[in-house]
Amino acid sequence: MRKKIGIGLAGFGVVGRGIYEVLAENSPLIAARAGADFSIQHIVCRHPERAQSLVGSSIPVGDDTCALIENPNVDIVIEVMGGIEPAKSLILGALESGKSVITANKALLALHGNEIFNCAKNFGVNVYYEASVAGGIPIIKALREGLSANRIESIVGIINGTTNYILSAMRESALTFPQALKIAQEKGYAEADPTFDIEGLDAGHKITLLASLAFNTPVCFMPENMEGITQISPEDIAFAQSVGCSIKLLAIAKNLNGQIQCCVHPTLVDNDNFLAHVNGAMNGVFVQTNALGPSFYYGAGAGGKPTASAVIADLIDCARGNAPIQPAPTTEAFYLPPKEIQSQYYLRLTISSSEQLQRVQNYFEGFAIPIEKETLSNQCWMVLTKPIKENTLQSLISKLNQLEDLDKPIKVLRKESMLMGI
Amino acid sequence: MRKKIGIGLAGFGVVGRGIYEVLAENSPLIAARAGADFSIQHIVCRHPERAQSLVGSSIPVGDDTCALIENPNVDIVIEVMGGIEPAKSLILGALESGKSVITANKALLALHGNEIFNCAKNFGVNVYYEASVAGGIPIIKALREGLSANRIESIVGIINGTTNYILSAMRESALTFPQALKIAQEKGYAEADPTFDIEGLDAGHKITLLASLAFNTPVCFMPENMEGITQISPEDIAFAQSVGCSIKLLAIAKNLNGQIQCCVHPTLVDNDNFLAHVNGAMNGVFVQTNALGPSFYYGAGAGGKPTASAVIADLIDCARGNAPIQPAPTTEAFYLPPKEIQSQYYLRLTISSSEQLQRVQNYFEGFAIPIEKETLSNQCWMVLTKPIKENTLQSLISKLNQLEDLDKPIKVLRKESMLMGI
Repeated sequence: MRKKIGIGLAGFGVVGRGIYEVLAENSPLIAARAGADFSIQHIVCRHPERAQSLVGSSIPVGDDTCALIENPNVDIVIEVMGGIEPAKSLILGALESGKSVITANKALLALHGNEIFNCAKNFGVNVYYEASVAGGIPIIKALREGLSANRIESIVGIINGTTNYILSAMRESALTFPQALKIAQEKGYAEADPTFDIEGLDAGHKITLLASLAFNTPVCFMPENMEGITQISPEDIAFAQSVGCSIKLLAIAKNLNGQIQCCVHPTLVDNDNFLAHVNGAMNGVFVQTNALGPSFYYGAGAGGKPTASAVIADLIDCARGNAPIQPAPTTEAFYLPPKEIQSQYYLRLTISSSEQLQRVQNYFEGFAIPIEKETLSNQCWMVLTKPIKENTLQSLISKLNQLEDLDKPIKVLRKESMLMGI
Repeated sequence: MRKKIGIGLAGFGVVGRGIYEVLAENSPLIAARAGADFSIQHIVCRHPERAQSLVGSSIPVGDDTCALIENPNVDIVIEVMGGIEPAKSLILGALESGKSVITANKALLALHGNEIFNCAKNFGVNVYYEASVAGGIPIIKALREGLSANRIESIVGIINGTTNYILSAMRESALTFPQALKIAQEKGYAEADPTFDIEGLDAGHKITLLASLAFNTPVCFMPENMEGITQISPEDIAFAQSVGCSIKLLAIAKNLNGQIQCCVHPTLVDNDNFLAHVNGAMNGVFVQTNALGPSFYYGAGAGGKPTASAVIADLIDCARGNAPIQPAPTTEAFYLPPKEIQSQYYLRLTISSSEQLQRVQNYFEGFAIPIEKETLSNQCWMVLTKPIKENTLQSLISKLNQLEDLDKPIKVLRKESMLMGI
C-alpha cells in the first residue's frame, strides 16, 4: 500500500489548473516515482465557483486560506497565487502548522525569503521553490544538487519570457518596443500591466533567489541593480547584429572573490553563444562552476504545464523525504557596489568631423579606457571597450555629455561573454 | 558534529585523480552541502605506487579490490576503473556488503545493469551513476527528479565527446575522418584504440542507460542499433551544410506508443537547433516530455574534474540519504524492430541524364515515398524524404542498387528534428 498525501492548492489560475491537469494526466507514473498517491484535498482561489465546476464537488473549494491550512486532510501546501498577501500569511501559517510548502512565488521569496526560510527551519519543515525560477527548467535542482560538488562562479540567464519574446519579435520583425509589447500582450505573453516584466523586476526577483542559493547568502533583492528593456530601439538591435551580437535581457549573478554582483540589464551577447539563440518566450541559463566548467539549461520558463512540471517535481521530492539542501547562510552577503562592477561596454557615437572624433578619443585615453574593437562607419563611431569599471564608464559619459556638438544621449550597452567550454 | 563518511576509491586514472582533487579543493562547501565529512579511506588502482606518492602514506593504496570492500572504514564505494572486470565483482561485492556504490562505468551498466540494480535492491543499498552519461551534465538527475512529473517522450543527445570532436574538426578544417581522428588522438580526445567511441558503442551504452531510466524498462543494450562515424566523408559534411544542417553522432531514445526506439547513428541536424552547435568534445542532450515540452542540457561530457562533479554530486545525495528513484521495471521493454523505425532520410545520387533521373524518381513513386525537398545541382540529385519506415528505405535502396548506371554506394543519412519550443 502506498502512502496517501493530501495537497492543499492555493491558486487556480493558469499554473494551478496546469498542476491539476498534470497530476491527473500523469497520475500512475507520478505515484510510482513518489511512492505515494497524491490527491488534492482543498483549493482556495479568487473565483471558487469556476474552480468548483472544473474539479467536481468532492474537493472543497473556497477563498479562505485559513480553512486550507487547518484542513486536516492537507499534508502539503502548494502556493501558486502570486503576489505578497495573502500568499505570505498562507505560507507562514502552513509552515507553522508543520506542513511543507511548494511555491512558485518569486516576488514573495525575493522580498521575504529569509523570514520564510527561517520559519520553515524553526518548524522542521521545508520550502521548495523550483517553479519560481525559469518555469519547468530544473535549474534550482541543478544548482543545489546536480552541481553540489562545485563552487559556483557565475550564473547568466534569460529568465523572463515576456521580455525575451519582445526582444525576439523586435529583432525578427524590426519592430519598435511599443509595437512588440502590443503583440506580446495580444498573444498572452505580456500582462495588461507589464511593468514587473519589462522593467526587469521579475528577472531581478529570480536572479536574487539564484544568487542566494548559489552563494549561500541571505536573500537580498536590490531593485536599483535591475534595469529593463523599455529603452531598447530597433537601431540598437541592428547595431548589435552588425557586430555579431544579439541584445538579450540578462540576469547576472557572480561571485567575484567573495563580493557578489547581482543585476539585470539588456546586454550584448555574441551570436556564437547559446543565449543569443534562446528565442520567443523560452528561458536559458548558463552556469559557470569550478569543477564542471560551463553548463547550460534551456526550456519553457512559464505556462501552466511547464510550471506544473517543476511544482510536481518538488512534490515528489517532498513525498520521498528528499529535503532540499539549505545550509544556513553563514555569511552576510557582500554585494559589489554597482560602481565597482566590471563589464565590457559598447558605445555608439555620431561623429561629424575628424576633430570631433579626436576629442572623443582623447577622453578615452584620458580615462585610460582600453579598447578591444572600434569601427568608424557612416559618421558613426562604434567602440567595444575591454572590461572596465562602471565607475570609469560613468565618468567618461559625463565628460562626453559636456561636448556640446555631440548627439545625445550616448547609447551604451554592456556586453557579457560566457565560455562555451570549447 | 558532522558525521564522517569513508570512501573507497577504485580507479585512480584521470577521473579518480579528479575526484581526489575536487574533494580537496571544494572540501568545506561539499561538507556543508552533504552534512558530512568525507575522507578517502582506501584506494585500489593499477599503479598503486604512483597513487600512493600523490595521496601520502595515511591512505592505504593497493590493487586488491577485496581489501577495499572489506575495509571497515569504507562506507561508500566509488568505482571509476572502467571495463567489466574486476569492476563488476567489486561493485557486486560492495553491494552485498551493504555499501552503496557510485560508478561512472557505462559499459558495465549497459551490459550487466539489471544484475547490479537487482543486487542493490536485494541488499537495501543504492547504485548511483550520474557520471556514467554525459560526464558532469546532471542529466540522470534531470530525467529522474527534475522531470519526474513528466512522461518522457524522447531523448536526443550528443553524448560521446570523441566523435563530436572529430566531426567538429572535420567540418571546421575540411579534414577526412582519418586525419581528424589522428588529431583527436594527439590531443588526447581519442584513445589509442578508438573503436568503442568511433563505432558508436560508447554512445550506445549511455543511451541504453538513459532509455531504461526514462521509460522504466530493463537495461537492454542492442549493439546492432549502434552505428559510428567511420563512413562520414568531407563531402557528406559539405552536403549537409549546403542544406542548412550539420552532421552529428546522435544517440536517440524514443517511446513510440509503448515501443522503444534506441539507437545511435550519424544524423543531419538543422543548424537552427542547439545540437548543431554542440562542438568540440562537449555534450548536449535534448529531452522532450509531455508537461514541460522540450528542454536541453549542455556541458562537459568527459574529463577528470567534470566527471568528478557528477560523482561527488552522487556522493552528497548518498550521504543525505536521498535514494535514487528506481521503480522496479514493471514491464518488459518492447523494442521497435529496426525496420519499423521511422525517420526522414537524405539521399544523394549522382545523375548523368534526365532519363536516369526519371527512372530513379519512378522508384520513389513506386514505393510511395513522400518527398519533402529535392534539389538537382551539378549532376547531383539530393532529396529529403518525409518520415518513412527504415524498411521502405531499404527496399528502395536495394532497387536503386540494381540500376547499373548509378554511382554506388548511394549515400544515405537520417535526419532528426527536435522541437525548440518556440
